[in-house]
Amino acid sequence: MAKRLVEVFTAGCSVCEGAVQQVKDLACDKCEVVVYDLNRKCDTLECEEKAREYGVKSVPAVAINGELVSNNGIDTGELKAAGLGQ
Amino acid sequence: MAKRLVEVFTAGCSVCEGAVQQVKDLACDKCEVVVYDLNRKCDTLECEEKAREYGVKSVPAVAINGELVSNNGIDTGELKAAGLGQ
Repeated sequence: MAKRLVEVFTAGCSVCEGAVQQVKDLACDKCEVVVYDLNRKCDTLECEEKAREYGVKSVPAVAINGELVSNNGIDTGELKAAGLGQ
Repeated sequence: MAKRLVEVFTAGCSVCEGAVQQVKDLACDKCEVVVYDLNRKCDTLECEEKAREYGVKSVPAVAINGELVSNNGIDTGELKAAGLGQ
């Protein structure tokens, strides 16, 4: 059976560290977990290109077989409703 | 009128940079915008303590007057539903 590609986007900060472990704990032998640190940046800038390609808006973020599964960015509507700029 | 405290939590990565600018663009003269880089860490570790206190689960995240407004972490339910570990 083909391996399931699990890509984790982080920025190497304390908030992301827990998430990487969570994913590793959940992964099984059919899952191939790849972790990208957007701060340390890889030589080929592959991680930045993938983050853009997948539309990563916040970290930690997780893509499974090329599909972004867990990723939520800043919601400006929420910020405005909470008073920002009003 | 009291200033509105707008705290932005980032990790200094490419994903967060845009969000900091978004918040600054939305802010008005009644908003005091403070940016915490969880990667560069401040001397007093105030930023880490605040991130923990507010329950920041992903970055970028924004708190307004001490209330976390925009912040979503990894949803393990979503990950499982997408096949992780199955």
